[in-house]
Amino acid sequence: MVSRMEEFQVPFSRGLEGVPVAITAISHIDGKQGNLIYRGFPIEVLAQFSTFEETTYLLWFGDLPNKDELENFKRDLIEHRRIPDFMKECIGNIPRDTHPMEALRTCVSMLGCFDPDKHDTSRGARIRKAVRITAQMATIVAYAHRTRKGLELIDPNPNLSHAANLLYMLTGEVPDAETARLMDVILILHAEHGMNASTFAAMVIASTLSDMHSAIVGGIGALRGPLHGGANERVLEMIEEIGSVENVEPYIKNALAQRRRIMGFGHRVYKTYDPRARILKEYARKLSQKSGQTKWFEIAEKIEEVVIRELGAKGVFPNVDFYSAIVYKMLDLPKEIFTPLFAAARVAGWTAHVLEYLQNNRIFRPTSIYNGPTEVEYIPLEER
Amino acid sequence: MVSRMEEFQVPFSRGLEGVPVAITAISHIDGKQGNLIYRGFPIEVLAQFSTFEETTYLLWFGDLPNKDELENFKRDLIEHRRIPDFMKECIGNIPRDTHPMEALRTCVSMLGCFDPDKHDTSRGARIRKAVRITAQMATIVAYAHRTRKGLELIDPNPNLSHAANLLYMLTGEVPDAETARLMDVILILHAEHGMNASTFAAMVIASTLSDMHSAIVGGIGALRGPLHGGANERVLEMIEEIGSVENVEPYIKNALAQRRRIMGFGHRVYKTYDPRARILKEYARKLSQKSGQTKWFEIAEKIEEVVIRELGAKGVFPNVDFYSAIVYKMLDLPKEIFTPLFAAARVAGWTAHVLEYLQNNRIFRPTSIYNGPTEVEYIPLEER
Repeated sequence: MVSRMEEFQVPFSRGLEGVPVAITAISHIDGKQGNLIYRGFPIEVLAQFSTFEETTYLLWFGDLPNKDELENFKRDLIEHRRIPDFMKECIGNIPRDTHPMEALRTCVSMLGCFDPDKHDTSRGARIRKAVRITAQMATIVAYAHRTRKGLELIDPNPNLSHAANLLYMLTGEVPDAETARLMDVILILHAEHGMNASTFAAMVIASTLSDMHSAIVGGIGALRGPLHGGANERVLEMIEEIGSVENVEPYIKNALAQRRRIMGFGHRVYKTYDPRARILKEYARKLSQKSGQTKWFEIAEKIEEVVIRELGAKGVFPNVDFYSAIVYKMLDLPKEIFTPLFAAARVAGWTAHVLEYLQNNRIFRPTSIYNGPTEVEYIPLEER
Repeated sequence: MVSRMEEFQVPFSRGLEGVPVAITAISHIDGKQGNLIYRGFPIEVLAQFSTFEETTYLLWFGDLPNKDELENFKRDLIEHRRIPDFMKECIGNIPRDTHPMEALRTCVSMLGCFDPDKHDTSRGARIRKAVRITAQMATIVAYAHRTRKGLELIDPNPNLSHAANLLYMLTGEVPDAETARLMDVILILHAEHGMNASTFAAMVIASTLSDMHSAIVGGIGALRGPLHGGANERVLEMIEEIGSVENVEPYIKNALAQRRRIMGFGHRVYKTYDPRARILKEYARKLSQKSGQTKWFEIAEKIEEVVIRELGAKGVFPNVDFYSAIVYKMLDLPKEIFTPLFAAARVAGWTAHVLEYLQNNRIFRPTSIYNGPTEVEYIPLEER
C-alpha cells in the first residue's frame, strides 16, 4: 500500500557546512590560520585598542567613527538603556527557576511591542531599533539575573561605558578600570562571528522582511542551545566536575573513550587555535594570578594540553567558550548568565548582518529531499 | 590603506534556492505539477476527509491515528488550551496598536518560561511542548485579537474541535458545522509546507539543541514578514484598494509596469497553480454566492485572470495567500489576524520538522563570501 520513493543519494551538505549563504563585508574567519577580522581589523587589534561601542559602530557602518560620531553613538546607546516599568514587572513575574536566556528572549520580544518605530520598516528605523535593542539587552540581562537572585534592580548609570555599566547593573558595584576594560574586551570578542547559527537564524527571519525584534529574538533562541552559546556554561560545569588537575587526564580520556563531546573544544570553522580563546586565555591567567586562586585556570590549561595531545591532529583546539568560562568564573559571575552575556555582545553582529543582508535581500527558502511514502490510501477512521 | 580582497565570483545560490538542507518524510511539493503531499497523502484528500487534529498527528508521527490514538491526542490538545492568568494580564498590557503577531511571538516565548518541562530536552518533553504550544497558540491568537478590540476574553470550550473552538474564542459564537469545517480545511492547508522560511528558521534554532519554544518563536518571527505569512494581509489590502472589477486591469498593468510585486502571486517552489489556492478558491466562490456579496471574489478572479495572462508563462500563479484572504474576508475576520491564523496552523509543520531534524541533528553553520577590506590600519581616535 505504501510505496517508498526511490532512495535519493543526492549529495548535500548537512548543517550547510561549507555552503555560502551571503556575501558580506562585516567579518572574515580564516579557520586554517586562526585569524578573525572585523571589517578588515584583526580581532587582536580591536581587543587591544577598541571599545564595544566603537566596535559596534564599525560592524554596522563599516568604518571606525570619528570623535563626534562616536560621542553621538555612545549618547544614543546611553539614552536607551532604560526599559519600560511594565517590563520590570514582567521579569518579576517570570518563575525564578527559568533560565535567563528565556527571560531575555521574552523581554526583547516584548520590547518590540513597545518600540516607537514598530510600524516603520525603513533602514533608518531598523538602525534605531538596533541601537535600542543593543542598549536594552544589557539592562535586561542584568535585571533577569538580579530578579532571579531576589536582588533590587539597579538603574543604569549614564556616566559609565556600556561594559562598565553592564557590570554595575549586574553586581551593584562600579567596576575598577581594569575589570571594566576586561568586560569591554569580552564584549568585543563575542560581538561578531560570521554565519554562526544564531546570526544565520536572525538573517533567515529578517529575509521575510519581518522586523528587527523578530530577528534578534530568533538569534537569542538559537544562541541558547548548548551546541552554540550555551556551551560556555557547560565548560564551567565540566571544569568544576573535574575539580583537580590530577583528575583531568582520566576524565578526558574516559570522555573520549565514550565519544562524549568535550565542551569548549572544536569548531566548525577553526581547525586551529581560536584567536579569541588565545586572548581570553591570557586574561584568565592574569586574573588567576592576581586573585591567587589559580586552581581553575590550572585545570583548564591541563584540559587543553590533554585534548590537544589527543585531538589536535584532527583540528580540535579550544574555542572562545573555553577560556571565557574561566574569565567569568574569576569575575565571580554566575554560570547562568554566561550565555546572556554572550547575547548582549553578539547582538552587534546579529543586527549588523540583518542590516547588511536587507540591502540586497532574498528570502531564504531552501529545499529538502523527500524520503517518505507516496500514494498512500486514506482509510476512514472507522476502519483503522 | 584599505586593500579590497579580490572580488570573488564564487557561484552560490542566493536565498538557498534549490539547495537541500534536510532529508524529510513529512511533506513533498512537486512545484511543476502543482502537487503537495503530507506523509504521502495528497493535500486534496486531507482537505476532504481529515481534521486539523488528525493532520497534526500525521505530520508528527507519520501515520494516521486509530480511534484511540486520535481520542487521546484530541483530549491532550483540549487539556492544554488554557493559558496562565498572568499571560492574559500580559496581553492586556501590550499596547493596542501592536500587531497581533508581535503579541503572539511574545506570549509563546513567555509560555516557555512557564512550561512544566522547561528543563527537559528529551524527545518526549519536546513532543509534550509541541502539544501545548499548538493548543495554546490558538488561544493566544484569539485573546490577542479580542484584547486589541477591547472585548472580553472567552474561555476555550472543551466540547468543540480545535478549529471550531478557535473561531468560538475569536468571535464569541459557536460556528455552524459548515463554517467550522471550513476553518478546519484552512488549518489543514496551512499546516505544513516543507522548507519555507519560518520552518527553516525554527530548524536552524533547534539545531543548536535549543528548546522547542525558542524554535517556534523564531518561526512566528519569520512568518510575520510580508514576503512570507504576512502576504495574506497585503492581498486583502490590494483587493480593497482596487475596489471594483473595472479597476483590476489598469491597476495590475500599472503595478507590473512599475515592477511592483503582486501580493498572493508567485512562489519559490510552485511554477503552476498552488493546489491549496485551488481548494480555497472554491470555498471563496461558495461563500461569496451564499452571502450574496460576490464583489470581492469577482475582483480576485479578475486579478487572477490578468496576472496569469501577463505572467503565467513565467510560472506566476495564485498562491495560498491569495484566496485565503478572500475566504477570511467572507468569514468577517479582520486582516490583522490572517497571519496569526496562519501561524496557529503552521505550528504543526514547524514542530514536525524540529522533531524530525533533531533525530539526526547537525547544527546549521553555513559560510559567507567576504568582500570587505583586509589589513586595515587602526588609527587612534584622536587622529581620525
